Amino acid sequence: MSSNRLIYLPLGGAGEIGMNAYVYGYGPKDNERLILVDLGVTFPDMESSPGVDLIFADIAWLEERADRLEAIFITHAHEDHVGALGHLWPRLKAPVYTRAFTGNIAVRKLEERGVDPACVNIVTAYPETIEAGPFTVSFLPVSHSIPESSGMVIDTPAGRIVHSGDFKLDRNPVVGEAFDPDLWASIAGDGIKALTCDSTNVFSPAAGRSESTVGPAIRQLVEKSSGMVVATTFASNIARVKTLAEAGRDAGRSIVLLGRAMRRMVEAGVQSGVLNNFPTTVSPEDAISIPRENLMLLVTGSQGERRAASAQLSRGKYLGLTMKEGDTFLFSSKTIPGNERGVLSIVNAFSQMGVDVVDDAADLYHVSGHANRPDLEAVHKIMKPQMVIPMHGEHRHLREHVKLAGENGFPAIIATNGTMLDLTGDEPRVVEHIESGRTYLDGKIQIGALDGVVRDRIRMALNGLILVTLIVDEDDEPLGEPWVEIKGLPQQGNSNAPLAEVLEGDLAQLLGRADDKTLRDDDKLEEALRRRTRQVALDEIGRKPEVIVVVSRLMA
Amino acid sequence: MSSNRLIYLPLGGAGEIGMNAYVYGYGPKDNERLILVDLGVTFPDMESSPGVDLIFADIAWLEERADRLEAIFITHAHEDHVGALGHLWPRLKAPVYTRAFTGNIAVRKLEERGVDPACVNIVTAYPETIEAGPFTVSFLPVSHSIPESSGMVIDTPAGRIVHSGDFKLDRNPVVGEAFDPDLWASIAGDGIKALTCDSTNVFSPAAGRSESTVGPAIRQLVEKSSGMVVATTFASNIARVKTLAEAGRDAGRSIVLLGRAMRRMVEAGVQSGVLNNFPTTVSPEDAISIPRENLMLLVTGSQGERRAASAQLSRGKYLGLTMKEGDTFLFSSKTIPGNERGVLSIVNAFSQMGVDVVDDAADLYHVSGHANRPDLEAVHKIMKPQMVIPMHGEHRHLREHVKLAGENGFPAIIATNGTMLDLTGDEPRVVEHIESGRTYLDGKIQIGALDGVVRDRIRMALNGLILVTLIVDEDDEPLGEPWVEIKGLPQQGNSNAPLAEVLEGDLAQLLGRADDKTLRDDDKLEEALRRRTRQVALDEIGRKPEVIVVVSRLMA
Repeated sequence: MSSNRLIYLPLGGAGEIGMNAYVYGYGPKDNERLILVDLGVTFPDMESSPGVDLIFADIAWLEERADRLEAIFITHAHEDHVGALGHLWPRLKAPVYTRAFTGNIAVRKLEERGVDPACVNIVTAYPETIEAGPFTVSFLPVSHSIPESSGMVIDTPAGRIVHSGDFKLDRNPVVGEAFDPDLWASIAGDGIKALTCDSTNVFSPAAGRSESTVGPAIRQLVEKSSGMVVATTFASNIARVKTLAEAGRDAGRSIVLLGRAMRRMVEAGVQSGVLNNFPTTVSPEDAISIPRENLMLLVTGSQGERRAASAQLSRGKYLGLTMKEGDTFLFSSKTIPGNERGVLSIVNAFSQMGVDVVDDAADLYHVSGHANRPDLEAVHKIMKPQMVIPMHGEHRHLREHVKLAGENGFPAIIATNGTMLDLTGDEPRVVEHIESGRTYLDGKIQIGALDGVVRDRIRMALNGLILVTLIVDEDDEPLGEPWVEIKGLPQQGNSNAPLAEVLEGDLAQLLGRADDKTLRDDDKLEEALRRRTRQVALDEIGRKPEVIVVVSRLMA
Repeated sequence: MSSNRLIYLPLGGAGEIGMNAYVYGYGPKDNERLILVDLGVTFPDMESSPGVDLIFADIAWLEERADRLEAIFITHAHEDHVGALGHLWPRLKAPVYTRAFTGNIAVRKLEERGVDPACVNIVTAYPETIEAGPFTVSFLPVSHSIPESSGMVIDTPAGRIVHSGDFKLDRNPVVGEAFDPDLWASIAGDGIKALTCDSTNVFSPAAGRSESTVGPAIRQLVEKSSGMVVATTFASNIARVKTLAEAGRDAGRSIVLLGRAMRRMVEAGVQSGVLNNFPTTVSPEDAISIPRENLMLLVTGSQGERRAASAQLSRGKYLGLTMKEGDTFLFSSKTIPGNERGVLSIVNAFSQMGVDVVDDAADLYHVSGHANRPDLEAVHKIMKPQMVIPMHGEHRHLREHVKLAGENGFPAIIATNGTMLDLTGDEPRVVEHIESGRTYLDGKIQIGALDGVVRDRIRMALNGLILVTLIVDEDDEPLGEPWVEIKGLPQQGNSNAPLAEVLEGDLAQLLGRADDKTLRDDDKLEEALRRRTRQVALDEIGRKPEVIVVVSRLMA
């Protein structure tokens, strides 16, 4: 046995669904040559990350070792796999490998951030291989909910790893390659070292359904609809977009693509050659003169995003188009946990307009892009890995996936973000925990999730803010009274006088009683004012607000 | 026909699920005598109401007419029906009528707010009647997910109204009265004027299941569990709490009630006589010395509430009790839309501890307390109302309920909060829209939802805050440089210097260039500083923050 080792280190995506970033390494301890699989984002929410634009994995560990990074492979073009590339590539600067459709999106991501996209290398699927230091890597076609999704076949001196990527077992995915069990079996040969495997749907007990099964129900719905039909789905699900568009065309409707992502994804599909024979579309401007019963809009915003086309339509006119009583709105999608409120507010707005909203409650108009529990078992059995490493899941998914693998005799281990595994031996071993976490893109700046910036925002939102300013003269005497401003708090409290005035009076009294030591010491003075402000606020309005005290001293 | 009219006016609960408050009136136009059914709360969320404690219906319309309010009836003790009583009763001061269990809770609500609970009159169910001005009212027992839930039979000179309250058709509800179709049919007689009807589950296609059906599955789960068993459900679902406790006792486990609401509700059940033979419980202190395999905890927090027992246990020790690998945690509940993130974070925390979490994905351990679509149809047909008025639902529920009633030949109408209906004639007529809305309880203060307080909080959370203070001397000249403080924003921007310093330097230059007119005019000066601060922030960090400018002028 050499002193080289094979390591696996998730920086994002293991212990959460989002911001995927998985490192593999091979070589002498602490001097391994590295590759990175995927570089995605997570989306912020008001509860934990108000005001944040995007969330990335903290790549500090990898950045420090960027000289050892041989390549970055992007499995597919979903935001949680490619979304951070434009933002983080400048910190890593390694060649990027993708297939054509993914590359089309990746190049755009880099260009948007002003990065030269020459780093992107477009490759074809297995059996083409890429040499990346000690690794020989190829893209294994898998079916998912976006074209050209791929697993990675990663050959190392310590054995072959198959990194599943996001996948499902679809024999008829409408667009892109079908799941090919024979190909997978041949890749597995007599067994592989490790299967790093998608865990998203491990709790879904029935076998997954093919993308092709939603077509008939969608056709039926569109045919029987009388007014305008509007349908939303993830724009990147080009197969679904095509199914929807064909259902519209065949019902004699003109197709309109609404929303930047919708147009962009169809364009990427055509440019990269994965999408053929897409129905002719008309522009929103031209659509206005077409009778509404001859129109079908395909729109962005299936998750209730406030700025997407769905939400805009629910608030009124969008690009000249409005919804009316008798129209039909189809969610050909499922709501991701956490997005319920946004989606329901759109549904209720449409309800007020008299629009019939059809969602996927009856499992007719949507199928998942991930392998369900029996599908995962099937793949374990085809690949016969020496070990299963669940990824792409919250802790509960990873834990269940480990149990599932164990039931079929495959050793498995939970490795969440920051957990480094040594895969060299017969069983995976935890060898190190590195500091992992989240980086926020906030406006133009990348900040650490624990930097306190977002904590302060949350505190202001929960507690409101009181600002106290005071001028102290050359003799350390207050000049006039303190000035109080209030933001995000009731203007009037229990004593039926404006809270600011009550505070100013009370703080003036406090200053009148204050000793010279306090008045001379900025810290003491600020602390006294802050404490009193919080106490008065508590008495008056029943809250302890955030308080900023600014003492300005006139210099002699 | 007299000139009297019968009106219906929802102030809360119609167009939303929460803060129920329904007004009925009878008498001459604009001089009707009034009754109020229910006075509940809605719970705030970070997205729309950060920092708010509770949300009530805006009762300004009713408060202005409090002299015409004959009585307040509370149908049942859920927070969305009784939660605002203690807070809003002082603004209405009408006698309150409830049945015993609800009354027990209502009295506590009033006492907590320092209101004399003598206003609460405990009454028995139909056929006992209460005279309230022109109304004769009685409590019609219905099955729901809390004891003694009731519909209201409201007799008026213009006919009988049945206000369903929250209900399901349960022939075996474990605790409390079963649904009695014969009683309902006899109330309906040859038809009633209006059925004001729960719409919550109008989208649930299958008939509802009885509370009694969850017992066997729960027993089985508890019996086969080896470690400690912890189960959560709504504490007010006393039938469920009893089922859980009995399953634990019969499996040889000692029962511990954890969480204030859990103890309080069981106590109310015993005190009001609806709960008998509840298994003996042990205190958390005594539980510590009992082997964990002989313990079953019944805990609050089924919706992931941060301070409830479930969440506390997921973060570590709670009252000396901790969860461990091999324990089982049962959600005998469903997650209300919007609460997914909180619940899943608890599930993942338990997963990390090695606790097996069982939820209701398989429909085994929970049933809803509301009538499903076929149940609503059954009730329409039993009651044969002249009109159906859907309530207790978002707009989409109300709209669907109107459609459903129409399919069976019952005229129905959507009346959302603030919509006054005249029910006197054969069909309901919209006669007025009154200003309705939400009142926030914020600390000790009631504020209007549109007062701007919460808007400012949301803005601070989304945009961060910059504070600029400046002293201007007696000659209208800046004294020193402006002082900048930053809260909730990155400390450093593009120019790699602290943002506060960059701003101070830039604003000092601005002041150097400012003309006398600007320096003399507070508004102009503040606006110039604010605008420049936002522009510099945009350049430096890519955001436009909230800005507070305080200019202090020294007086000559």
